[in-house]
Amino acid sequence: MNSLKNDRYLRALLRQPVDVTPVWMMRQAGRYLPEYKATRAQAGDFMSLCKNAELACEVTLQPLRRFDLDAAILFSDILTIPDAMGLGLYFEQGEGPKFSKPITCMADIQNLPAPDPEQELQYVMNAVRTIRKNLQGEVPLIGFSGSPWTLATYMIEGGSSKAFTKIKKMAFSDPKALHLLLDKLADSVILYLNAQIAAGAQSVMVFDTWGGVLSPRDYQDFSLQYMHKIVDGLTRENDGRKVPVTLFTKNAGMWLESIAATGCDGVGLDWTIDIDNAKARVGDKVALQGNMDPSMLYAAPERIEQEVQTILAGFGEGPGHVFNLGHGIHLDVPPENAKVFVDAVHKYSAQYHKG
Amino acid sequence: MNSLKNDRYLRALLRQPVDVTPVWMMRQAGRYLPEYKATRAQAGDFMSLCKNAELACEVTLQPLRRFDLDAAILFSDILTIPDAMGLGLYFEQGEGPKFSKPITCMADIQNLPAPDPEQELQYVMNAVRTIRKNLQGEVPLIGFSGSPWTLATYMIEGGSSKAFTKIKKMAFSDPKALHLLLDKLADSVILYLNAQIAAGAQSVMVFDTWGGVLSPRDYQDFSLQYMHKIVDGLTRENDGRKVPVTLFTKNAGMWLESIAATGCDGVGLDWTIDIDNAKARVGDKVALQGNMDPSMLYAAPERIEQEVQTILAGFGEGPGHVFNLGHGIHLDVPPENAKVFVDAVHKYSAQYHKG
Repeated sequence: MNSLKNDRYLRALLRQPVDVTPVWMMRQAGRYLPEYKATRAQAGDFMSLCKNAELACEVTLQPLRRFDLDAAILFSDILTIPDAMGLGLYFEQGEGPKFSKPITCMADIQNLPAPDPEQELQYVMNAVRTIRKNLQGEVPLIGFSGSPWTLATYMIEGGSSKAFTKIKKMAFSDPKALHLLLDKLADSVILYLNAQIAAGAQSVMVFDTWGGVLSPRDYQDFSLQYMHKIVDGLTRENDGRKVPVTLFTKNAGMWLESIAATGCDGVGLDWTIDIDNAKARVGDKVALQGNMDPSMLYAAPERIEQEVQTILAGFGEGPGHVFNLGHGIHLDVPPENAKVFVDAVHKYSAQYHKG
Repeated sequence: MNSLKNDRYLRALLRQPVDVTPVWMMRQAGRYLPEYKATRAQAGDFMSLCKNAELACEVTLQPLRRFDLDAAILFSDILTIPDAMGLGLYFEQGEGPKFSKPITCMADIQNLPAPDPEQELQYVMNAVRTIRKNLQGEVPLIGFSGSPWTLATYMIEGGSSKAFTKIKKMAFSDPKALHLLLDKLADSVILYLNAQIAAGAQSVMVFDTWGGVLSPRDYQDFSLQYMHKIVDGLTRENDGRKVPVTLFTKNAGMWLESIAATGCDGVGLDWTIDIDNAKARVGDKVALQGNMDPSMLYAAPERIEQEVQTILAGFGEGPGHVFNLGHGIHLDVPPENAKVFVDAVHKYSAQYHKG
């Protein structure tokens, strides 16, 4: 299991030398690929695809066949844990995820079970094992989870939200209840990610899509505190190699120092921060992942290449950079533009790794 | 016209001494007030309310009758300019603003007229004159406009957006067309705000709701550049007093230095930045407006008072602070909580203005 043919991604996250900057794309398996749509049609709905290890493996590997990517990421949903807790995840056409039994009060929270990863979430572990086997050591496999705060937003709002009215009402009027929920979620995320690592994930990432809607004080209290607990609780070794953990909070450019102080290995950046600024602030502690605006993939190849070069020059010399988009790839991006992006990262980064 | 009874708001924006910190609330006239709903029902739809000077004046004054606010803000919509350009603004129940004739290409942009503020937008100027007369010098009147970038997002997307796909496609594939649109909008905003000032607005504010979805480079290029042009083009005097201008970009905490460098008087802050951090960075150049999370108004009175005190202590001694929410008040906030907020600002701020 130790013979990883391309370990640039793992090395960069540990700030070890690499030949070129590794690159992957958030949501690299997805609707912008016609082969994904075909597999999904075969599976039926989205969760059926997640729950079928063979098909989840198939869509995980699809982007690797098209593009020279340096990592694979488990195909799954960030809301598997609340679904396993019994909240009834479902998807309505064009409306994003919803829960049929959202959390409304302290009693709901007290009654939440802690899902056993090898029972209620075994389908995820089966997908990890299947993908890992089929990857045949080509590139490392990334496991992931939503952050406690981000999971809680969906669990309390009942789905996507713009103003986060319900969870903020709870945060400001019944903070004890919310803290109990977040603590339970952190415990479940630790179990879940450790099970993914045991099943074969060589790196893990925590997605905090909605931490950026909080004030700096509330971010520390309601989001970062629980991601810190997760970092502390993870098994950090697999097959004799360190398992790097990356934390990503969207719209958190002002809070990078506190994220880096959790002991994570990598910090994900969205595109609203200059990567040279981020490197100057936390580049001696953590690797940085990012950070091209996903909408740049709508542009012409020359413009995409130019943007990649600007970001590479911003990070400058030395290891510690995993190139990525600043958020998930859009569903209507031409796949050939994604190829231009991935190839440009390798082509133009070699000059920064000669030292 | 010179006898303004309460000029705290204007003085604070010019960083002159005040007795207590002035306070107003973005969207202080609105659906959280039952009297607003009654007036709006009388007007018919939202734009009919905006276009009726007497009723627009009535809803502008309603929050001043309930709360001890230090400024009134013109009741209008940020999309009046594109509507006057002929794009056909309409509102669909629960869906936000839409345009029946969105911008799709360079030819559309070349054909856009520059609305005459005293012709196509005369209803706004009539509202300003009516409100100013009825205010009887109690507090200053704030005029406003959307920023060119923010107006352009609605004009190109055809309404609200999450990913800003269409405008970013234009930004990255046909930047010349977008720059022409933004420049035309900046010119129209200058005419519009200068007409509001001539009609009686004693301060103006530019709302850049969506500048924060850009990268730092693209923000400079597509949003801030045009707000800078507006600041340069404004008449900055009225009735022998300076007319302060405030720029507000949501999610722009990392870019405060460049916003302050435009020559504006005030910079609006959302709640994702600590105000002491903002003051340390730009407080010697501009006044700061903000920055309580609007969702804090869901909390109990004691919690609201505590948050007000935290923000006041963060700003600390001296003038240059206009208290506000970090964004518009939510439509389901109890009005009595807004009163707790406004009163707390005055009650707890006097100690910081003794110098």
